[in-house]
Amino acid sequence: MSEDLKINGARLWDRLMEMARIGATEMGGCNRQALTDLDKQGRDLFISWAKAVGCTIAVDEVGNIFARLEGSNPDADPILMGSHLDTQATGGKFDGVYGVLAALEVVQTLVEAKHVVAPPLEIAVWTNEEGCRFPPAMLGSGVMSGAYSLEQAYASTDKEGRTLGEELDRIGYRGTLPASPRPYAAMLEAHIEQGPILEADEKTIGVVSGIQGAHWFDLKVTGASAHAGPTPMAMRKDPWRAVAPIVSQVLQLADDHAPWGRATIGDVSADPGARNTVPHTLYLSIDIRHPEEGVLASMEEEMRCIIADACAAANVTHSLQEVWHMPPTTFAPHLVDTIEVAADALGYSSMRLVSGAGHDSLHTAQFAPTAMIFVPCADGLSHNELESAEPADLEAGANVLLRAIANLGEAQARD
Amino acid sequence: MSEDLKINGARLWDRLMEMARIGATEMGGCNRQALTDLDKQGRDLFISWAKAVGCTIAVDEVGNIFARLEGSNPDADPILMGSHLDTQATGGKFDGVYGVLAALEVVQTLVEAKHVVAPPLEIAVWTNEEGCRFPPAMLGSGVMSGAYSLEQAYASTDKEGRTLGEELDRIGYRGTLPASPRPYAAMLEAHIEQGPILEADEKTIGVVSGIQGAHWFDLKVTGASAHAGPTPMAMRKDPWRAVAPIVSQVLQLADDHAPWGRATIGDVSADPGARNTVPHTLYLSIDIRHPEEGVLASMEEEMRCIIADACAAANVTHSLQEVWHMPPTTFAPHLVDTIEVAADALGYSSMRLVSGAGHDSLHTAQFAPTAMIFVPCADGLSHNELESAEPADLEAGANVLLRAIANLGEAQARD
Repeated sequence: MSEDLKINGARLWDRLMEMARIGATEMGGCNRQALTDLDKQGRDLFISWAKAVGCTIAVDEVGNIFARLEGSNPDADPILMGSHLDTQATGGKFDGVYGVLAALEVVQTLVEAKHVVAPPLEIAVWTNEEGCRFPPAMLGSGVMSGAYSLEQAYASTDKEGRTLGEELDRIGYRGTLPASPRPYAAMLEAHIEQGPILEADEKTIGVVSGIQGAHWFDLKVTGASAHAGPTPMAMRKDPWRAVAPIVSQVLQLADDHAPWGRATIGDVSADPGARNTVPHTLYLSIDIRHPEEGVLASMEEEMRCIIADACAAANVTHSLQEVWHMPPTTFAPHLVDTIEVAADALGYSSMRLVSGAGHDSLHTAQFAPTAMIFVPCADGLSHNELESAEPADLEAGANVLLRAIANLGEAQARD
Repeated sequence: MSEDLKINGARLWDRLMEMARIGATEMGGCNRQALTDLDKQGRDLFISWAKAVGCTIAVDEVGNIFARLEGSNPDADPILMGSHLDTQATGGKFDGVYGVLAALEVVQTLVEAKHVVAPPLEIAVWTNEEGCRFPPAMLGSGVMSGAYSLEQAYASTDKEGRTLGEELDRIGYRGTLPASPRPYAAMLEAHIEQGPILEADEKTIGVVSGIQGAHWFDLKVTGASAHAGPTPMAMRKDPWRAVAPIVSQVLQLADDHAPWGRATIGDVSADPGARNTVPHTLYLSIDIRHPEEGVLASMEEEMRCIIADACAAANVTHSLQEVWHMPPTTFAPHLVDTIEVAADALGYSSMRLVSGAGHDSLHTAQFAPTAMIFVPCADGLSHNELESAEPADLEAGANVLLRAIANLGEAQARD
């Protein structure tokens, strides 16, 4: 019975630490950027483990790896798991890697228990999730979902001028499987939360119901430059007179949509940026997020009013450019329930939450019913060499994944 | 009688335009930075004019030029006029140059009218007023006043690694006259306003009663970086929560001390400055000014409270470094009156004002009774190739200088 199945937490931890040695940094993190020699080493290591467990390996045109274990019903749509192995330049040991190795642990546990589920199981290792070497992020899953063309992906170029296509060839990971949607019964991705909510609420499992939508804007506010000494305050057109209230009110706007509203002014600069000159122009980036499309749209509307009103009051002009829009993703409700039920059955405390960060699941949700499992990470720290997670939590998340897969496999078998 | 004396406005204008050809820029401005070959050409041209008028020339150790016309009383303390000939890299035709050539025009007018005043008259051309090539600004007058040592000045280095001392030698302007205070009866500097007040008030002459004091600060506000998506607003330590109100309140603080209070946030940056990361640190420059030392001190005190309160409320930390402090300069009241009386007598509209920018007069006020005469400049624009002034206003300012010198010369003669 699947109730007795438990993953081997020590083995999962050992594999995480072994993978972390490839590209290990002095600060205890990882630098294993997409399609580098180190990424190739990580991919090779994963494949050697997956083959040893009995998986067959396929690589698609954009380098996504699919390790497949056959089920009892060859006609059933497979269930997909997995995440990514590439890291930020100053990344941690768990972001992405955990989702891949938790899936491997699930497959190995089923194999060792001789527990055969009806559908085939596949573990995906998505190419270039981080996007720090080859923009944009989540490129491999994005090509598969159709968000990006294969040509776009191949042409993405790193700072040294090497393209993703060349680097795929160089490390031997340009495959022949078409990078296009195939039928899947489900996709489940386990991941560290990359935020502080589970830790603060002392919950072990995050039952992720979707991914926040985000709008990225560039705001330019233009007044007139003036010498800091001779120009009376009343005769200035200082863009700060608009920008200071804009910042306060846009942050307040997110507060007003707690707990899921977000607003971030990540970057700012002044032109000419001289200490004794009133800047003629201030540049700001604005990032607003909310998991509900309607609320996000009304936040954007309100933000535009805040900006227009503040600039009119300060007698300065502005331009607002939308740089990127990621619509909210709502995960498949029956999979979200399956995860919650699995966590409850295993006695782990859990809570529903929404992912604030993008994940490959954002793209897989376009062609397969998708959901995610989060586990806590220390201080919510991620994209950071100090990224850290508790072995017990990592084990719990993998057990929830295992239980969910077993239940889904049985459910599919019954259908 | 001095009542009949009038300067030759056309000649003044022609000389301004001739000087402006040395280092003329395509945009109609001037690039004649301190101790370049072009600065040497400008100095040589001035000296040729001054000699033709009957002046003797002395150059001091830091390259300050003194063109001297003897008076009727060789024992009288001389009266000093003048300003500077160096410009910003993208400077205008009038900043500094006007004060030198107005003084030359005054001397030539007196010579041509055979109007001999009692004290000797000297025209100073101060070295490196702009400071854009060799920091700090106002260096030549500052060495003479004792604000900087000769060694400091010689060691000042431009971006190409050449020192001010080497460049003085190279262009042949390292003189032997000690660069130290000598007795002067008065120093009068004519200058374009570099601000918009005279133009807005439709006044021809600014009777300058002093120079604003200024404090320059670097403010660093530190919270904690966080991913823009996963971190709830309530769990962030976003330095913007302090910085937005600080900016609003520091600008308001200057408003509260109208018309002379000033506050400028000239530069700002975020670290790490990524659009999807809450910055852990924001850096701001703050420039506050007021002509009264007591008011300026209370503004500083209030600013420190604003910053401390805002950072405490936002649960972020800060450090505030004072970068520079220029105490207010109060000009000699009897010279300020003399300028006002001269403007009135000539029928020019005038108003008292305080200089918001620093000038060589700031340093000369340390060793000689000093005052300044301002004339309007278009849109208050200066340190800009589009800097512009009306010939009639330039002529008016020189006539006020002439009348003031004549009156001071008579007054000194009567003493």
